[in-house]
Order: sequence, then C-alpha cells, then structure tokens
Amino acid sequence: MKIAVVVPNSTMPADVLDLRRQFLEANASAGTELAMWRNDLGPESIETEAQRDEAAVEIVRNVRARDLTGIHGIIPWCAADPALDSLRQEVSVPVVGPLMASCGIATNIGRRFTIVIPRGDVPMTRQRVQGYGYGSALVKVRQVDRPVLELRTDMNNTIELLTREVELAAREDQADCVVLGCMALFGVASQLKASIPVIDPALAALTTCESWIRMGISNSVHPRAA
Amino acid sequence: MKIAVVVPNSTMPADVLDLRRQFLEANASAGTELAMWRNDLGPESIETEAQRDEAAVEIVRNVRARDLTGIHGIIPWCAADPALDSLRQEVSVPVVGPLMASCGIATNIGRRFTIVIPRGDVPMTRQRVQGYGYGSALVKVRQVDRPVLELRTDMNNTIELLTREVELAAREDQADCVVLGCMALFGVASQLKASIPVIDPALAALTTCESWIRMGISNSVHPRAA
Repeated sequence: MKIAVVVPNSTMPADVLDLRRQFLEANASAGTELAMWRNDLGPESIETEAQRDEAAVEIVRNVRARDLTGIHGIIPWCAADPALDSLRQEVSVPVVGPLMASCGIATNIGRRFTIVIPRGDVPMTRQRVQGYGYGSALVKVRQVDRPVLELRTDMNNTIELLTREVELAAREDQADCVVLGCMALFGVASQLKASIPVIDPALAALTTCESWIRMGISNSVHPRAA
Repeated sequence: MKIAVVVPNSTMPADVLDLRRQFLEANASAGTELAMWRNDLGPESIETEAQRDEAAVEIVRNVRARDLTGIHGIIPWCAADPALDSLRQEVSVPVVGPLMASCGIATNIGRRFTIVIPRGDVPMTRQRVQGYGYGSALVKVRQVDRPVLELRTDMNNTIELLTREVELAAREDQADCVVLGCMALFGVASQLKASIPVIDPALAALTTCESWIRMGISNSVHPRAA
C-alpha cells in the first residue's frame, strides 16, 4: 500500500522533510510505501485558524494536482487536521486526520485525556475535538509556550516542558492518557518517560491509515459529484 | 510481536477455532504471530449478561494460568468485550476489546454509527458503548434474530439479513457506518456490498492491538499490586 502525506508547511527544507519521511518509514508496516507531498504555497506553520484555512486550501490544491493512481490513503501532516473533511469529499481513499486518529486511540486506551499543544488556539482545539464527538473524554487542552517552528531546536527543553505537562495532566487533570497535538512532536512521545500513555499523532495517523486500508474500509464521507 | 486471542466459547471444536486463526493470520501484519487460547470452562456462546460474566471469569483464569513471556497483546474474542477491564487490571500488555476498538474506528470514519448484533441484549450493548464514551455517536443497535452459534451455518442467509440491516441503518438511522457486534461474523463485513462502511470487529481488534504495540503504548489501566 502507498500512503501520501501532505505537508502544509510551505517553506520546509528538503532535509527537514526527509527526517519526517525517515521516521514514518521506520515505523511503517512491511509493505507500506510513503509519498511526501509538500505544499508550495500557504503558511510556514499552523498556529491560527487563518493559517489552518490557508493550509487546507493548499492541501486540496496539492492533492487535486496529483495523479492518485496507486495511492491508498492520505494524511494531512498537521494535528489541526486541515482539509480533513474537504479531502474526504474529494477523494475515495481514506483520509486520516492526526488529531482525530489520536482521539480515537485515546478513548480506547483510557477514559479521560488531555491534549498538549504548542503555541496555538486552545478553544479551537477543544471545539474540533467536540465536533468529532470525543469532547466528553477531553479533560483539558494544555499548552507549552513555544512556537511550532522552534519545538525541535532545543529538544531537551521541549521534552522537559512536555514531561511537566504530562505529569500535570496525570495528577491535576486526572487524565489517563495524553495526546500530543502537533506534528512537529513526531517521535517525542516515546522519549518522555511518562507515568501515563502518550500518543504520538504521527504514529496514530500512520497506523490508523494502514489499518483502514488493510480492513478495506474508508471514511464514510463520499466524494460528491462535481 | 505475538498476540494472544482468548476464545471464551468453551465447546468450540479445534477445526472451528482454526478457521478463526487462519482468518486472523491472513489479515495480520508481517511479523505478527497469534496464539489462540480457548477457555475450557464457561459458556458455549455469549448472549446474556450472565454468560458474559461467566466468560469473563474464565478468560481471566485462562490468562492467569499462562506464561505471558513473549506475549505483547491480548484480545478477548467476543464483541461484548468480556474481561476487558479485569484483564487490564491484571496484565501490563495492551488488552483490546473488539467492540471498543470498533467504536474507536467507527467514530473516526463517520459521525453516527449503528451496531448490528445477533440474538443478544440491545440495551446492554448500548450501555457498554455509552460507558466507553461513544454513546453520542451511537444511533441504533439493530438485531438479526439468529443465535450466535447459528450465524455461520447458513452464510447466505446471514449475509442477506445483515445486508438488510445495514441498508436500513444507512436509510432509516442516517448512520454513516455500521459495526458488526459479534465475533462469529469475522470476515463477513467485506462480503456485504454495503453502501456505507461496515466494520469487522475481529479486524478492528487485530489492527488496533497491532497499532498500539507498534506505537509502544498500552491501555492506561495499570495492573494493581496483588
């Protein structure tokens, strides 16, 4: 199977993009191929709703311009799930949102979860989760005060900040698991030594997409007639 | 990775058990091994809460009697999820409930889902889904009037009955996907030619369990000190 990952960060350099590809390839099932499709236009990172909308428009344009032959699933590479529903209306293959997939897993492994996001919009994150139907299990949206583009410049600091929020989630929120709400945090969940499970949104999206393809099911929103 | 499937149907003959093993093996990822552990005691099938409780007790006894070395995940083979939480309190590896896993997927691929069960308890099925936190997305629990043990004796008839319920789910319930609520229906979802996605609980449990193991996460209920 082949899964296309659409990266909305328009200025992401090739080597930085390649780190994401390598991480996904290292965690993919045998037989899964990946295509990384970076947007040429749109925002550098997604921290506001306007940036999310711009990213969504460019994700759809990007996908429309591609030959989808041999593509079995699509993942928008952003935990704000830009273009999730618009792509579902346009293509017949599964489209998996990292945030939505993480919530599906969070509500299976526990009963109450906290999301930790970098600089961004807490109420909008909550609104999205409520729209998905997982709102009753969402205790809190916590934040670390770092811009998305700086999360990986000092990884020790990022891990320290996240570890603190995860432990506060466990102790103060009585959350029994945590979702990391940003794709720049790929690979970090497993490094946190947390007392409760922490969900990596990149792995959540990847394994969810692979599962649906293997099961032969797609999302239930069908492409509309043009 | 190795996943243990605990089959509560105490009188299931070896050849019937082997069909389940073959189906799971055919759908497992490369590198996944399966162990089928049938209960020696307990009910033949699970249609009542008393049978579910008996099955749960025997599933836990069965698992307690085993050497869990090299076992990375456990699936109770029943879509009433018997022993799901009790096993989670006893072992540190992921324990995946077929119904819970199906609900997690259903709420990702759509917004409203219907469950179709054989003879069994409709309000209890609803209560379980509500307990899991997926109740707001559950439109209806539909039933086909066949005992569990007869579902595979006339597969054409079973497929016909299920197809009708799935189409009613789409049309009358406005469900946008359907969960099959019985493990005796393994492999049937892909044969239904339905207008909306239909989730096979056996595949839901298998792919979910594999995903968690690959992600390095377990359910958040931890084993208690003895």
